[in-house]
Amino acid sequence: MKNIVILGSTGSIGTQTLEVARENPDLNIVALAAFSNIFLLEKQIREFNPEIVCVWDADKSRELSENIKDTNVKVVSGMDGLIECATWDKGHIVVTAIVGMIGIRPTIEAIKNKKNIALANKETLVTAGHIIMPLAKEMGVHILPVDSEHSAVFQSLNGEKQEQIDKIILTASGGPFRGKTKDELKVMKVEDALKHPNWSMGRKITIDSSTLVNKGLEVIEARWLFDVSFDQVQVVIQPQSVIHSMVQFLDGGIMAQLGTPDMKLPIQYALFYPDRRNLPGERLDFYKLKQITFEEPDFDTFTGLKLAYEVGRAGGSMPTVFNAANEIAVAKFLNREIQYLQIPEIIEYAVREHKNIPNPSVSEILDIEKATYDLIESRW
Amino acid sequence: MKNIVILGSTGSIGTQTLEVARENPDLNIVALAAFSNIFLLEKQIREFNPEIVCVWDADKSRELSENIKDTNVKVVSGMDGLIECATWDKGHIVVTAIVGMIGIRPTIEAIKNKKNIALANKETLVTAGHIIMPLAKEMGVHILPVDSEHSAVFQSLNGEKQEQIDKIILTASGGPFRGKTKDELKVMKVEDALKHPNWSMGRKITIDSSTLVNKGLEVIEARWLFDVSFDQVQVVIQPQSVIHSMVQFLDGGIMAQLGTPDMKLPIQYALFYPDRRNLPGERLDFYKLKQITFEEPDFDTFTGLKLAYEVGRAGGSMPTVFNAANEIAVAKFLNREIQYLQIPEIIEYAVREHKNIPNPSVSEILDIEKATYDLIESRW
Repeated sequence: MKNIVILGSTGSIGTQTLEVARENPDLNIVALAAFSNIFLLEKQIREFNPEIVCVWDADKSRELSENIKDTNVKVVSGMDGLIECATWDKGHIVVTAIVGMIGIRPTIEAIKNKKNIALANKETLVTAGHIIMPLAKEMGVHILPVDSEHSAVFQSLNGEKQEQIDKIILTASGGPFRGKTKDELKVMKVEDALKHPNWSMGRKITIDSSTLVNKGLEVIEARWLFDVSFDQVQVVIQPQSVIHSMVQFLDGGIMAQLGTPDMKLPIQYALFYPDRRNLPGERLDFYKLKQITFEEPDFDTFTGLKLAYEVGRAGGSMPTVFNAANEIAVAKFLNREIQYLQIPEIIEYAVREHKNIPNPSVSEILDIEKATYDLIESRW
Repeated sequence: MKNIVILGSTGSIGTQTLEVARENPDLNIVALAAFSNIFLLEKQIREFNPEIVCVWDADKSRELSENIKDTNVKVVSGMDGLIECATWDKGHIVVTAIVGMIGIRPTIEAIKNKKNIALANKETLVTAGHIIMPLAKEMGVHILPVDSEHSAVFQSLNGEKQEQIDKIILTASGGPFRGKTKDELKVMKVEDALKHPNWSMGRKITIDSSTLVNKGLEVIEARWLFDVSFDQVQVVIQPQSVIHSMVQFLDGGIMAQLGTPDMKLPIQYALFYPDRRNLPGERLDFYKLKQITFEEPDFDTFTGLKLAYEVGRAGGSMPTVFNAANEIAVAKFLNREIQYLQIPEIIEYAVREHKNIPNPSVSEILDIEKATYDLIESRW
C-alpha cells in the first residue's frame, strides 16, 4: 500500500492522479488539498476517504467542514494546512500539483519529512532548484517529475548514469502559433492561443505553450532535475507530440520515451517508479502514425524561450522574476488587458529591471515574486 | 582491464570491435579467430598482441604460423581451435562475430566457461535459442546483443523489468526494394540488392535486408533474447534508420534508442555495459533530420518475413531450415545461379519439405543444416 498526498487535487493533474488511484486499489489517498473548489473536493473526499483535506481559502474551508461533518475527515486551510497535508505522517509520496509559488514551502517541508515528491509544480524547481535539489539529496528523497517531458527524460535515464549524459533533448509541440511571424502574433487573441494542437491542459499552461515560455521553464527545471548545464539542454520542436523527450549520452546513443499524449502515464510512472503497470488507454500505432517531424525553435519570434536560457544561466533570483512576470502577463492577457506580444515584452522588462540576488532564500523568492507583480501592475 | 576474445575478427563486426578496442586501452585483446584472411589477421596480431589466434582453414593457419614466428602467439585452427579461443582462460567477454552455424558450438563452450557473450552471430539464437538462453541463465552469463536492433531493445530495457514488456517494436529500413511490387522484384539483379540505403554491411546480410529475411531472423532472435512471444514482436518499417528499435511497456510508454547508423555503438555498449563511454563519430542532429517516417511491412511481397514468423512460432528445427535454406539461396543468387524471387521460393520449399523436430540438439541442428543444403543443391 502506498499512501498518497495530493496538493492541488481539483486541478488537471490532481484529478488525473485520482483516476490513476481509482484503477490501482493499492494507492491509498491520505490527504488532499485544493484552492477553492469544495464541490469537487467533497466528491473526492467521499470517494477516496482521505484523513485530512486542506482548502486554501479559509471561508470555503469552513463551508466544506460543515458539508462533510458526517465524516471524520480533518479540514484545514491556508499555508499551515497545506504543510500539514504535505507532511502528514502516513504519506509516502506527495504529488505537488499546485500551481504557483505557494507550492514551494509545502514541498520543502515534505522533503524534510522524507516524503518522495511527484513534482508537477513547475515553480518549485524554476525558482528554488538550488534549495530543493541539495535538500532532496541530503534527505535521500526522490524527486519524480510529473510532466511528460521531464518524465520522458527521467525514463530515458533509467539504468543510466547521470554523469554519462551528453545532452537532454526536450521536445516541444511548438504550440498553436508554430511557424507564425511576429506580425502574425501581434493580432492573436485569447481564443487563438488556447487552441493547443495535442494536449488538453489548463488555460495558463496552454498560453505558456503558445509563447514557448513553458518550454523555457522546462529547460530551467531540467537543469536542476538532471544536474546538467544549460548548454546541455536542447529544445527541438516535434509537432506531433509523440516523442516526449530524449537523452543523448556520451556514446552518441539517444534514449527516448514515446507515447500518446496522456498525462496519466507520467503520473502513474512517478507513483510506481521504478515499476510499470497496465494503464488503460490508446496506444501509439506506428502503422497509422506515418511520421514524426522535427524543427528548430524560432528563438527570434518566440523570445520568451531565448530569455529563459538567459535567466537560467544568470541563475539566482532571475528565474523567479521571469516566472512571476510571465504569470502576471499571462493573467493580463487572459483578462484581455494586454496584447499577445506584450507577454514577452513584460517579462523582458521585469528581467531587465531586476538586480540579481545569488542563492535567494525562500522568503527572498516570495518577496521578489511580489515585487515583480507590483512592478508590472504599476506599469500595465 | 577487460579481456576480449573476438571470433570473426577480420569481418565487419570484428574489425569495428578492434576499432573500439583501439580507442579504449583498457580493452585487452587476448584471442582472435578468422576464417582465412591471414593477411589482415597478421596486421591485427601485430597491433593488438593477442595470446592465441585461430584460423579456420588449416593450410592458412600453418602459413600464418610461419609468418609470425617472430612472435609468441599461439596459432590454432578448425573447430577445436575456435573453441580454444572461445574458452581461453583469460577471456572475460567473447564477441561472436562469426557468420553461420559454426558459431554455435564455440558460443556454447564459452557460456559453459562463464564468459559473457557479445552476440553478433545471428544463427546462434535463431537455431539454438532453446539451448543457449537457459544455459546462459544457468551459468549467470550475460548475452549482450551486438546488432543495432537488439542492442536498441536491450538499451530500452535498461532499468526496466522484462515481465513489464507489452511488445518489442523492431524497426527495419525496408532495404533497397521497399515499396516495390513482386513484378518489379522479379527482375532485380545482385547489384540492385546490394545497394542498402543506410547501413554498410557484408554482402549476405545486405541481401537479407532486401528480402526482409534478415528482419525475420531478428524477430526470432528477439523472441529468445527477451523471452517474449511472437505476438509481442512487431516489425515497423522506418526507412531513415534513425530509431534503431523500441519497447512498449504495460503502461503504453515506449522506450526507444536512436542514433546515427554506426555499429560501433552497439559493439561498445556491449563491451562496457552498463556503462557508456565517449564514442567519436557523427551525432544525430534533429534540426537537420527533419522527419522520421513509419510504414507497415508488405508481408505479401516480402514473404520471407511472414515465413519467419511462421517458422518461429513452429519452433523446434524449423528456424534452422529457414536459416540454412536462406543461406544457400542467397549464395546462389550472389553467384547469379538463381533469380531474386527464387530466394523466398527456395526457403518456403525447404520449410514445407521439413518434418519439424522439437528441441533439436546442436548435432541435430548441424545435421538439419546439411540436409537442407543437400535438398536445395539437389533441386537448384
